[in-house]
Amino acid sequence: MDQSDTLVLDTGAAMRAVRAGLAGTVGLVPTMGYLHQGHMALVRRSREENDHTIVSIFVNPTQFGPQEDFQRYPRDPERDLSLLKKEGVDFVFMPSVPEIYPAGFDTYVAPGSIAERLEGAARPGHFRGVATVVLKLFNIVQPTRAYFGQKDAQQVAVIKKMALDLALGLEITPVPTVREPDGLAMSSRNVYLNPSEHQAALCLWRSLRAARDLWAKGERRAETLRQSMRTILESEPLARIEYVSAAYGETLQELEEIQPAAQVSLAVWIGKTRLIDNIELRV
Amino acid sequence: MDQSDTLVLDTGAAMRAVRAGLAGTVGLVPTMGYLHQGHMALVRRSREENDHTIVSIFVNPTQFGPQEDFQRYPRDPERDLSLLKKEGVDFVFMPSVPEIYPAGFDTYVAPGSIAERLEGAARPGHFRGVATVVLKLFNIVQPTRAYFGQKDAQQVAVIKKMALDLALGLEITPVPTVREPDGLAMSSRNVYLNPSEHQAALCLWRSLRAARDLWAKGERRAETLRQSMRTILESEPLARIEYVSAAYGETLQELEEIQPAAQVSLAVWIGKTRLIDNIELRV
Repeated sequence: MDQSDTLVLDTGAAMRAVRAGLAGTVGLVPTMGYLHQGHMALVRRSREENDHTIVSIFVNPTQFGPQEDFQRYPRDPERDLSLLKKEGVDFVFMPSVPEIYPAGFDTYVAPGSIAERLEGAARPGHFRGVATVVLKLFNIVQPTRAYFGQKDAQQVAVIKKMALDLALGLEITPVPTVREPDGLAMSSRNVYLNPSEHQAALCLWRSLRAARDLWAKGERRAETLRQSMRTILESEPLARIEYVSAAYGETLQELEEIQPAAQVSLAVWIGKTRLIDNIELRV
Repeated sequence: MDQSDTLVLDTGAAMRAVRAGLAGTVGLVPTMGYLHQGHMALVRRSREENDHTIVSIFVNPTQFGPQEDFQRYPRDPERDLSLLKKEGVDFVFMPSVPEIYPAGFDTYVAPGSIAERLEGAARPGHFRGVATVVLKLFNIVQPTRAYFGQKDAQQVAVIKKMALDLALGLEITPVPTVREPDGLAMSSRNVYLNPSEHQAALCLWRSLRAARDLWAKGERRAETLRQSMRTILESEPLARIEYVSAAYGETLQELEEIQPAAQVSLAVWIGKTRLIDNIELRV
């Protein structure tokens, strides 16, 4: 396996210069590093669909609240680079925080109503930070397509809306959530879980499947689905619900009656770890 | 003079398709139409510096306040196109309002502290609208360089800051203000002025020159400059001061002592017409 071809760039200027020399299509996979199989699914999809693939690794401070886990967010750049080399990634963009946010930085992207619900309500400013850094990465990398995990479904919706509203002229491709064999959605934050918490965290996927099963049997009352999820989550002593939602996928507005393209999602604390997951209700 | 080569595009998709076929450098001159010699100076500069020049004409509703003159803002697209043809402009991008702001549009660029003072304080939301539409035009047109009149000096500063903060990777070029022979800065809004108001409006340039003359004679107290401007403006019965400013050009923070790269600016109502002007204090 040839591992010699991955080039790591740590400034916007260097990344831009490399990009200017690339012919054909370019796929971008924006990540915060500490890569897992969910990220690798994005990378593989980008490699299939584009002439070149660029992965960015940047733990973005502006999307973390002041009480959140920016400082302790897991980082392992050496392991990340080794994984990306094995995957045949051409370029890794790994800027420092001051490279992206130099002193005096104060222009942000303000996403609209889609960013106000669910994660946006629970994490004020989160999507402003996400949209801003993603736009900036897009501007530096100028990708043809960008790849995001469906695990962060609202993030996908916010970025799609930004791409449409601001005429970014690129394709946003969501990639299905990758799960552990036991059903837990892959997340860099899973490393925070001790074995009993990991076991407890399976209630997220169990409650999503229960909602899907009710829906598959014909249940259309959204509140009944939400209540079935709450019941399952509340039976897990280590779990604390932040929200459960059954919403229209495009706007994330809560539904009374389940429509096509509905999405069931939830945020749950397992001990000190906040986890999210979701599932689309689709035939 | 060959007037047959100007192509008018009214959708983002059409503009993008044309742009994709252009080799070499592209200059963009964003305007709200009703073109005057100030705009023509931008066009000529762009034509000198680029292989292709694209002029956009779009009266941008989001940069007008609810009580402002969006509806009555002067428009004359036929005359504009004729002027641009004579100037040898290759392409004119003239989208409709729903083309730029389709139903449900709600992602904005939020500029920072530089947008809060002066015009930003007098016109809440103005620079959010400016930054958003300019970013969107940049995304559609993908220019190498963009040209803006120094008459709207704070607009230039806001857009430069946006280009830096969001890594737009293009050059923002300010072009000196073009004045009538009597000193009135060219503005599409000058058409609102009746002859006696036009005469009264000369107090803007008179007060800016007075401040510059004081400074040239060695005066460094910013408040003395501002006071000299106020005295001149207050002696004009048709004028009502909105603000006078002597500020650091890059941040627009008011100065106590005039520094290099200071900027004197003002907003003044002449009857029902709001005018702005400015001058740099530079050796």
